[in-house]
Amino acid sequence: MENKKKIEVCLSPALYGNYENKEAIAVVTDVLRASSAIVAAFMNGAKKIIPVATLEEAKEMKEAGYMVAAERDGIVRDFADFGNSPFNFTAERVENHDIVYSTTNGTQAIQLASSSKQVLVGTFLNLQGVVDHLIKKNDEVLILCAGWKNKINIEDTLFAGAVVDALLKTNQFYTICDSAYIAQDLWLLAKNNLVEYIQKAAQRTRLQKNNLDDVIEYCHTLNLTSIVPVLKDDYLVKL
Amino acid sequence: MENKKKIEVCLSPALYGNYENKEAIAVVTDVLRASSAIVAAFMNGAKKIIPVATLEEAKEMKEAGYMVAAERDGIVRDFADFGNSPFNFTAERVENHDIVYSTTNGTQAIQLASSSKQVLVGTFLNLQGVVDHLIKKNDEVLILCAGWKNKINIEDTLFAGAVVDALLKTNQFYTICDSAYIAQDLWLLAKNNLVEYIQKAAQRTRLQKNNLDDVIEYCHTLNLTSIVPVLKDDYLVKL
Repeated sequence: MENKKKIEVCLSPALYGNYENKEAIAVVTDVLRASSAIVAAFMNGAKKIIPVATLEEAKEMKEAGYMVAAERDGIVRDFADFGNSPFNFTAERVENHDIVYSTTNGTQAIQLASSSKQVLVGTFLNLQGVVDHLIKKNDEVLILCAGWKNKINIEDTLFAGAVVDALLKTNQFYTICDSAYIAQDLWLLAKNNLVEYIQKAAQRTRLQKNNLDDVIEYCHTLNLTSIVPVLKDDYLVKL
Repeated sequence: MENKKKIEVCLSPALYGNYENKEAIAVVTDVLRASSAIVAAFMNGAKKIIPVATLEEAKEMKEAGYMVAAERDGIVRDFADFGNSPFNFTAERVENHDIVYSTTNGTQAIQLASSSKQVLVGTFLNLQGVVDHLIKKNDEVLILCAGWKNKINIEDTLFAGAVVDALLKTNQFYTICDSAYIAQDLWLLAKNNLVEYIQKAAQRTRLQKNNLDDVIEYCHTLNLTSIVPVLKDDYLVKL
């Protein structure tokens, strides 16, 4: 394994203390829906996305004049301009704008990973872009799944597995992380029927209850863009 | 799902706060090696096993005259009678004895689950016995994987998946837990080549380094016994 770079997968923010690695590039994912919304926003011309962990911060930023996307448990907060669906981040709304963004799981995970060498936002929409960047940088990799309120979820695990699988194929990386192998094998099992496989995910049921499950197919579309959001100081920009 | 009983899977003790359920029967597993050693001890006639979380407690119990099994990171502690291999718990040593037992991960997980309605110790060795008991009791089920120092591991996830798979087949149970589905699908993928599949587990590498990997095949043998260890007050007995 000499010269090969280590990959680890952290399947819940509550486990992050066991994986924190200042030498690694962290890929944060929250497939349904924060990561997908962030990638969609950059596709539609957003300049910056400022992730904030708490609703209080989001509200203060709204009062300071920012455009704010904020939700909890899938529900838009009343002070916010819009919520967490990638379909909200249209070019009409976001082009050339800075957007403050706070969600149930995804934005906290970005802040949690901020001690890493670099923090990327990854999702199926920009999978290959993320993988290409990781191969080029040739650093250690930590994939942090945002999960759901510290529980592990299927969709983020699948994305982690897709990255692991692509990186291990290069022979430039290795892993001895059981979570990485679990994620990879789940991805290999599901990849040819991704949208069908995800039907059993708890988050699909939660979104469905609020009539928000229209995004599921979109959020599991591979490689719509090569844009990779990266954390710079305390906001996200295009790499 | 009316009248059906809920199954959840907690893949790491660090996530237990999200799953704790006083109405559930908890199945604690640490396949390599604490759960397997506990089951082996009862197969060989042990009367009671007293799990203690800390080495200090284990040492005090040794001084009080108990037979003590204690290890950390796979290494027997010098004050202990023996360590964590199931092969140590021979009939010559354990028959009709009470044994104090402290390990890196497994015994803490048993104590963590103690607020549950009932706490069982499960492993591949007594898989069907555990499943039969859960079906008979018809309560909610929480499978707690001991993992490795709060990281998720493959072997405990596979055991959890085997229990989930067997219970869901009965139509008496349901799950909306993503970890349960992940575990079940991993089990279905691995079950026909369990020992081969487990070769990539990090714990195999750790045991191999200390020449302790002789137990791997044994610990992945299905249904050597129908004995189910159950927590009664603060010690384990046969159900």
